[in-house]
Amino acid sequence: MSRLYGSLHSRAHRCAWMLKELNLSFEHVATNFTDGSTHTPDFLKINPNGRVPAFVSDEICLFESLAINLHLARRHPSDLSPATLVEEALVTQWSFWVVTEIEKPLLLAAANSILFDADKRNPSELKVALTKLGRPFSVLDRHLSEHAYLLGDRFTVADLNVAAVLTLARLGSLDLSEWPRLDEWLGSCLERPAAADWKTISFRVPRPETDLGMLAMFV
Amino acid sequence: MSRLYGSLHSRAHRCAWMLKELNLSFEHVATNFTDGSTHTPDFLKINPNGRVPAFVSDEICLFESLAINLHLARRHPSDLSPATLVEEALVTQWSFWVVTEIEKPLLLAAANSILFDADKRNPSELKVALTKLGRPFSVLDRHLSEHAYLLGDRFTVADLNVAAVLTLARLGSLDLSEWPRLDEWLGSCLERPAAADWKTISFRVPRPETDLGMLAMFV
Repeated sequence: MSRLYGSLHSRAHRCAWMLKELNLSFEHVATNFTDGSTHTPDFLKINPNGRVPAFVSDEICLFESLAINLHLARRHPSDLSPATLVEEALVTQWSFWVVTEIEKPLLLAAANSILFDADKRNPSELKVALTKLGRPFSVLDRHLSEHAYLLGDRFTVADLNVAAVLTLARLGSLDLSEWPRLDEWLGSCLERPAAADWKTISFRVPRPETDLGMLAMFV
Repeated sequence: MSRLYGSLHSRAHRCAWMLKELNLSFEHVATNFTDGSTHTPDFLKINPNGRVPAFVSDEICLFESLAINLHLARRHPSDLSPATLVEEALVTQWSFWVVTEIEKPLLLAAANSILFDADKRNPSELKVALTKLGRPFSVLDRHLSEHAYLLGDRFTVADLNVAAVLTLARLGSLDLSEWPRLDEWLGSCLERPAAADWKTISFRVPRPETDLGMLAMFV
């Protein structure tokens, strides 16, 4: 049986969602990423980067959450899988896009709306993050004004990967009303039964004490 | 004929390298990313994100440089292409890995060693960036102590995508002697004739005036 490593409070929830969408049975090892468990010699044999998630099956040992999901989509053909080389390129494109355009500024926004203790949040940083997010959010909103889902008329691994990153927008209670199609699409994705794990995510991150520390955390 | 948009001083050099490895003829449109050319209405029809590179062929219009390269590898089978689903997962994994683990701290390191004007560089920021890079550089160095290339014994799109991001380490003259296998592998990748465009890359980036501006630039 395949194994997914990583607490569901980590990016492992992204892969748990995909595995559940595909009705695949798997062993879940809830490795904690906050207590050193991802840096033990045994874990580093599974993922030398000392991070979760990691996915291990009979044929592969893989890290990087969105790459794991793209592999599962290809390995277990379903409606979520790309059906052609063009669809394959597009699910890959959107998966990179959410990392390069959204993940880091969204983490900064979430830090200053929920992840840092209330007295450590900085409205100027939140504003910087939201300003940066405006561009990709508008791109996604316009795209979804012409297509029900990222690839057209069905939910695919592209939607799953992008929506899984955007859970942080919900956890941080970000106001998405300026992007109504994005907001509606995200709601429909995150209400899928297989996605439900994200709703229980709750953790705090200590704010670095200096500006240089902030840069080090988010770079 | 397919078209690649983006000055070779931009991330478009990554895709030019791939196209040249595959001996594919293409029209190169050297869209400048520093003078507003990527934000014209015509360009936004090609890439709504207002970024280069973008790749357009008879069948697809694609953004995200590393996704473009993964698509080219699949569309035009060669030694660089993944040969199995496992190899496909691994080339995708390493391509995400270089974005999530290396690209941003490497950009911060390069900013403070070459991209910012000399009197605007901050040794503390360089140190923060190099400290952060130590972990992924060590992961890559250890991997390459057991394998000549990322997937084993041949150069693939995984090596190309990772090395293409690491050009910034050479442009910023970062000392990689602590990671000798990484250093040697990178040299061998970047000396491939198809890669040569990166050597001419030269540009400056103005340093933001405030710490918040730095965070906004690198998040």
